[in-house]
Amino acid sequence: MSFVERWKLFEISTNGKSDGNPFTDYPVTAEFRNKNKSCKVDGFYDGDGVYRVRFMPSILGEYEYTISSDAFDTITGTFTCTEASDGNHGPVRVCNNYHFAYEDGTPYYPFGTTCYVWELQSEELQNKTLEELAKGYFNKIRFCIFPKHYHYNLKEPASYPYEKGNKEGLDLEAVEKYSRVYPPVEKLNSDFNFMKLNPAYFRHIDDTIEKLDELGVEADIIVMHPYDRWGFSKMTKEADDLYWNYVIARYAAYKNVWWSLANEYDLMPQKQISDWERYAAIICEKDPYNHLRNIHNCMAFYDHTRPWITHCCLQRQDLYRHVEYTDEYRVKFGKACVWDEIAYEGNIDLGWGNISGQELTRRFWEACMRGGYAGHGETYQHPEDILWWSHGGELHGDSPARIKFLHEILKETPGHYLKRGEGMFDETVAVPESMFESKLYEIHYFGFGRPSYRMFYLPEDKKYQVEIIDTWEMTVKDAGVHSGTFRIELPGKEYMAVRIREI
Amino acid sequence: MSFVERWKLFEISTNGKSDGNPFTDYPVTAEFRNKNKSCKVDGFYDGDGVYRVRFMPSILGEYEYTISSDAFDTITGTFTCTEASDGNHGPVRVCNNYHFAYEDGTPYYPFGTTCYVWELQSEELQNKTLEELAKGYFNKIRFCIFPKHYHYNLKEPASYPYEKGNKEGLDLEAVEKYSRVYPPVEKLNSDFNFMKLNPAYFRHIDDTIEKLDELGVEADIIVMHPYDRWGFSKMTKEADDLYWNYVIARYAAYKNVWWSLANEYDLMPQKQISDWERYAAIICEKDPYNHLRNIHNCMAFYDHTRPWITHCCLQRQDLYRHVEYTDEYRVKFGKACVWDEIAYEGNIDLGWGNISGQELTRRFWEACMRGGYAGHGETYQHPEDILWWSHGGELHGDSPARIKFLHEILKETPGHYLKRGEGMFDETVAVPESMFESKLYEIHYFGFGRPSYRMFYLPEDKKYQVEIIDTWEMTVKDAGVHSGTFRIELPGKEYMAVRIREI
Repeated sequence: MSFVERWKLFEISTNGKSDGNPFTDYPVTAEFRNKNKSCKVDGFYDGDGVYRVRFMPSILGEYEYTISSDAFDTITGTFTCTEASDGNHGPVRVCNNYHFAYEDGTPYYPFGTTCYVWELQSEELQNKTLEELAKGYFNKIRFCIFPKHYHYNLKEPASYPYEKGNKEGLDLEAVEKYSRVYPPVEKLNSDFNFMKLNPAYFRHIDDTIEKLDELGVEADIIVMHPYDRWGFSKMTKEADDLYWNYVIARYAAYKNVWWSLANEYDLMPQKQISDWERYAAIICEKDPYNHLRNIHNCMAFYDHTRPWITHCCLQRQDLYRHVEYTDEYRVKFGKACVWDEIAYEGNIDLGWGNISGQELTRRFWEACMRGGYAGHGETYQHPEDILWWSHGGELHGDSPARIKFLHEILKETPGHYLKRGEGMFDETVAVPESMFESKLYEIHYFGFGRPSYRMFYLPEDKKYQVEIIDTWEMTVKDAGVHSGTFRIELPGKEYMAVRIREI
Repeated sequence: MSFVERWKLFEISTNGKSDGNPFTDYPVTAEFRNKNKSCKVDGFYDGDGVYRVRFMPSILGEYEYTISSDAFDTITGTFTCTEASDGNHGPVRVCNNYHFAYEDGTPYYPFGTTCYVWELQSEELQNKTLEELAKGYFNKIRFCIFPKHYHYNLKEPASYPYEKGNKEGLDLEAVEKYSRVYPPVEKLNSDFNFMKLNPAYFRHIDDTIEKLDELGVEADIIVMHPYDRWGFSKMTKEADDLYWNYVIARYAAYKNVWWSLANEYDLMPQKQISDWERYAAIICEKDPYNHLRNIHNCMAFYDHTRPWITHCCLQRQDLYRHVEYTDEYRVKFGKACVWDEIAYEGNIDLGWGNISGQELTRRFWEACMRGGYAGHGETYQHPEDILWWSHGGELHGDSPARIKFLHEILKETPGHYLKRGEGMFDETVAVPESMFESKLYEIHYFGFGRPSYRMFYLPEDKKYQVEIIDTWEMTVKDAGVHSGTFRIELPGKEYMAVRIREI
């Protein structure tokens, strides 16, 4: 009898036929049944005649399964789903509409970073990235499956997601019509057979997702993106659908997976809204675990009210005001708002990658004080062009420690989650989201304001514990217990907050 | 024969009857005629039986005049208007639609400050203010005629603009309906006769305007405002009109006068739009020199497309994006945009008065790079509550020197004026406003971006002088002559700009 921990991956592999194109010729389907429920998942071909089926059980007790394919004889079996061990809280779900929690109910505050193709770098560099992630600054990482062609991303990857071959599955019309590659290259390197995946390439990403899970980091997987000189963004519908099905069959059973349909979907004119909706339909049909689903914009937001979108993944549309719209977008889209791109701490030439650690930290605070979340990225010039934002490696910036500090502050929220309080203009006031919190709890965040004191006007008959939070120096200073109208002295510097708790 | 310099003040005074209420009982009218034109102005009563008529001639040569009143026998006379002396450029006019020039054609770039009631402070403090203004940081100052009741402005003024008396001219309905005074006071101190002005009070402002003119500073006079515990904002229509006519008769002949109808007009619910339009009509009728006219908002902009408004005097409506709307508002209102309130450098408790010198300087640059202008104010805590923003005194901040530096940069613009260039997202590019400037001139301003280099893509067959401007350190560094595609190294810090001039 096998035993599998709740929300952990259960895998069955078998040998089968490998003639023709096993990726398309031999579909694998499996059914998992427990006392209440039956669940269908696809298996996938992993090369060398090996087929695999993966499943994430979530209900304690016995499961039985049947695996069918023309590639091998039907397989049946059973296993027992056991209690989750310490630290295993299950997949992240939307909670309280605008927020997140693990499936076991533990609150989850997304404090993510972006390292677009960190898993496609040298092993040494990947290990450095994992070492940095182990420091606990971030609990989510956005990264792409496909290699990236862009500024600071001009090297060929060590391997490719497809076999070299006869260009099967390349959408020649899209290549002709949308031939512009940025930054420009002499010619498109698209000598691939897009109907034949390279299992080793994808197997490495299995490993990546597992390592992230061990560190408690969610894998916000970007399935498509426009930064491409190989043709991965210009495949036919048939090849696209093969890819999507393969990715889901392969990765959906990892509890820490999120689906980000695209990075900057609006920079891919070769894909129509109907394409994105089709990909979304594939995920909704084929991912039985309902992992989080989002789609990231360059300029134009996707319609985040679409029912398949679980939360808004937002890139700033305005250079000066972005996270400051968080509370408005919560109302507009009716969903959790995660600002996954609001310019990165760094000093590169481009405006999206050269703000200060102070400014990035300020943006995190504004987002969180308004009931949303923000994402980190780092783009400091490097002699070998190793920029955290794309390659991972070492962190050089000032913001990660401050982001972790903010995360700690959020964890202290009564009722778990914050939203913006009403009626303030020159500061941002956060209050608990929960209507069950009857005792006052407020964080007054002053951003780039530098008050040397603030007045507070509260009832005379109650007592309030006041603390002064220096969001940059990462200190929380006791400022005494007060009632009624009172004055709190502040240091007249930027990035301060006052926390008030009724006691 | 008298001689008067062009655009300087010509005054005739006489004694007359002083029975009854000379302010209302004895109107004084005067007509000034030269070879081409006749101009009517009102005189005013200056107390102690003295009546005065003031006139600003603008055309060289002979003028003759006739002054009529029931208070004295008709006076006639002549004088000669002579050439302006050095430094006298005449009144400021709108120029090139979105900009300003003195009447003699010399460009004028408004770099103003705000000291609301500096002229109502002790003589010692006024002298300190004048000393600071003499340093040339600012060429415009916004200040109120009436005393101010507000935070940090709670003392009684040394004198009042009206005689103490029987409350004649107080709008009792307005007092009852709009009784809220902020900050609250126990009772309204409005024991005044609003039909009897106090000439000494207004005479002091004559002196103030003259001293500012000697320093080359425009007097942007705020005629009404809501911060009032004396009833000056709640006078009857009759008293209001008397006041407006008196102010115009008294001050219009000073070449450096601008009319700001109100500070935060929208905080005066006792006044309707029809009232503001009536005041505007009085100015348009009674000010023969067409001094600049504006009206300042708290939250809601006045309709700046109204024909009597010469330029937009704007207070920020959004805490995070304000001067960044300059180019949009130029299009919307079709007029020059002067951001006369965008938060002040300081450290007081209130959000409008505690930003850093860096941030205020950044706002000035953004406004100017987009073809507009910004205004300064300073609100540092002071042991005796002497804040530049209201009382004048000494400047303590970092921004004035940087504002002066920006002013010098603007003066170097070919064709005099800047507007925003097109098509940039992550930087603000300023180009000359004039369509007659055929050689490229661009300032690329990076704001809070910190690029360590930038690429430029210009024609191969032309030569460009490149300079690196550190807007905070106030340096302009030669970065050589370049052509075609070239890279400019930058220090990777905030508040930098690159200037490119075709040579």
